[in-house]
Amino acid sequence: MAKLHLIATGGTIACMPSKNGLVPGLEAKELLGYIPQGEDIVCTDLFNMDSSNIQPEEWQQMALAVLKAREGCDGIVITHGTDTMAYTASMLSFMLRNIDIPVVLTGSQNPIIRPDSDGRINLKNAVTAARSLPGGVYITFGDAVIMGCRAVKTRTTSLNAFESINYPYVGAVANGKFISLGEPRPKGEFSCFVDIDPSVALIKLIPGTSPAFFESVAGCGLHGVVVEAFGLGGVHNFRRDHAESLKKLIQKGIPVILASQCLYEASTPDIYEVSHSLKDAGVISARDMTTEAAVTKLMWVLGHTNDMDRIRDMMNTDYCGEITLQQ
Amino acid sequence: MAKLHLIATGGTIACMPSKNGLVPGLEAKELLGYIPQGEDIVCTDLFNMDSSNIQPEEWQQMALAVLKAREGCDGIVITHGTDTMAYTASMLSFMLRNIDIPVVLTGSQNPIIRPDSDGRINLKNAVTAARSLPGGVYITFGDAVIMGCRAVKTRTTSLNAFESINYPYVGAVANGKFISLGEPRPKGEFSCFVDIDPSVALIKLIPGTSPAFFESVAGCGLHGVVVEAFGLGGVHNFRRDHAESLKKLIQKGIPVILASQCLYEASTPDIYEVSHSLKDAGVISARDMTTEAAVTKLMWVLGHTNDMDRIRDMMNTDYCGEITLQQ
Repeated sequence: MAKLHLIATGGTIACMPSKNGLVPGLEAKELLGYIPQGEDIVCTDLFNMDSSNIQPEEWQQMALAVLKAREGCDGIVITHGTDTMAYTASMLSFMLRNIDIPVVLTGSQNPIIRPDSDGRINLKNAVTAARSLPGGVYITFGDAVIMGCRAVKTRTTSLNAFESINYPYVGAVANGKFISLGEPRPKGEFSCFVDIDPSVALIKLIPGTSPAFFESVAGCGLHGVVVEAFGLGGVHNFRRDHAESLKKLIQKGIPVILASQCLYEASTPDIYEVSHSLKDAGVISARDMTTEAAVTKLMWVLGHTNDMDRIRDMMNTDYCGEITLQQ
Repeated sequence: MAKLHLIATGGTIACMPSKNGLVPGLEAKELLGYIPQGEDIVCTDLFNMDSSNIQPEEWQQMALAVLKAREGCDGIVITHGTDTMAYTASMLSFMLRNIDIPVVLTGSQNPIIRPDSDGRINLKNAVTAARSLPGGVYITFGDAVIMGCRAVKTRTTSLNAFESINYPYVGAVANGKFISLGEPRPKGEFSCFVDIDPSVALIKLIPGTSPAFFESVAGCGLHGVVVEAFGLGGVHNFRRDHAESLKKLIQKGIPVILASQCLYEASTPDIYEVSHSLKDAGVISARDMTTEAAVTKLMWVLGHTNDMDRIRDMMNTDYCGEITLQQ
């Protein structure tokens, strides 16, 4: 039987009632008490946080905890709040590139202490998946197994909270058995890199977004920007000229990644006249990356380099299955 | 036969090739030449724009054009680019509250000049829907008929580009016939209000969003902010304290609407301890409104008042089916 390690970080699954609402409280061993296969799993209590508070510093701690646990086990489960789990799974996919054992994040919509909680089946399924999956970072939630860098939380309350975006589900867990739905992608050598640069902002456009908004962003110490533009990657280019604003950011050495605010399918600034000036200005297309992947990848890339050409090359490289290049 | 009016505003449906990519070019009469039922429809060519360029000023023009056309017809079709159509449909739902004839927006993913374009069936279906629907603002796309204030563009390229979020589809068009899937909601008196305040920004949080980002936003002349927070409405409340940043915005008289970055289901700051301080600070929950509805409603509300209590009351009022209050 594969040797597993559970790293607990908090989240709804570990929540207990308090006078101000639910707050994470259970430790790893206590979580494992709710599932049948938990006895032989080694435990680490890393922290006990609502995932709305997970930040780049916690990502670093998680990656280093995985690195440490990896030596003595065949698979790792991380319990985590759902709110930022997709961001964490994306970042760990970059930080722990080509990891040779499965790292499976899970959590739940209801505290595991409740008899009808989805936490019990989710933790059980994550353990099953961690005994079966090839190396890589994943989210299991409900019966779905999703590539970490392709997951998005799309539902605030339903039990099927996560979707795999622009990429097939890699597996499912049914009746306690893992069913593989996809081929594992080719792997390179494992590397761990945690010196990311978190000075990144996300700007989601709305009709009427003021150029002053971009200017103020440029003034607050950012090193990179991801823009959720309209449709395939459109922005205003008259009256309020976003193309001009983005050009100014790039001229200041701040890379601009152009993503879509549509949840599904790729963006491309190649098709419409309105996006033409953006290409000339040097924006980098997020293609079919999720916003979660685009944002965390940019932080990871900026940790490696501040050279604009190198940033562009790295954003256009597929590191862990996060981007489809032949589109 | 119901008398219809077509208001053309551009978009992919009207696009022609140019050396820099697709650009809107066809007029209303030309669009109608591609469908069988177009002959008796009165036409207005309002402008011919890529909808990535549609801004609050265009919304005002559209609402006034509808107001003018309404006198002489039983239903209105507006052709529009897909990229911002959901924002426009939401805003027109507020600007033209309780309109007594149907206003049906449509467009397409491919130019109508192409023989296989979805523009032909979409325009045909919009005309059918405009002859059948009760008063209100709608989007028809593919065979789906969606309440304007509940529509979101979720796909950048597929023909089923729009979804109805947190609300049933109000109808479908099949084999040229409109099928009603829902009861029309109770109506009040028609009113047209176009004096909106567009000084609104959308902030979508990512883990690590700097408090300096909020401070810079406060300094650039905004009168209201919609925040796409994590999950049910979580924000960082330590190290980078978003709760404190939002509180400062509210203290400066800038209302903060708390929405979720999850596409589906409602947000609520009531459940988790991490959101407790937000409620105390006076954030207003977007509940199950789409981001498109929350943003346009806030602009519309700010056009009526800058009194914080009145803003809160209005944001918590259901004007056109945009919000579910009994949750």
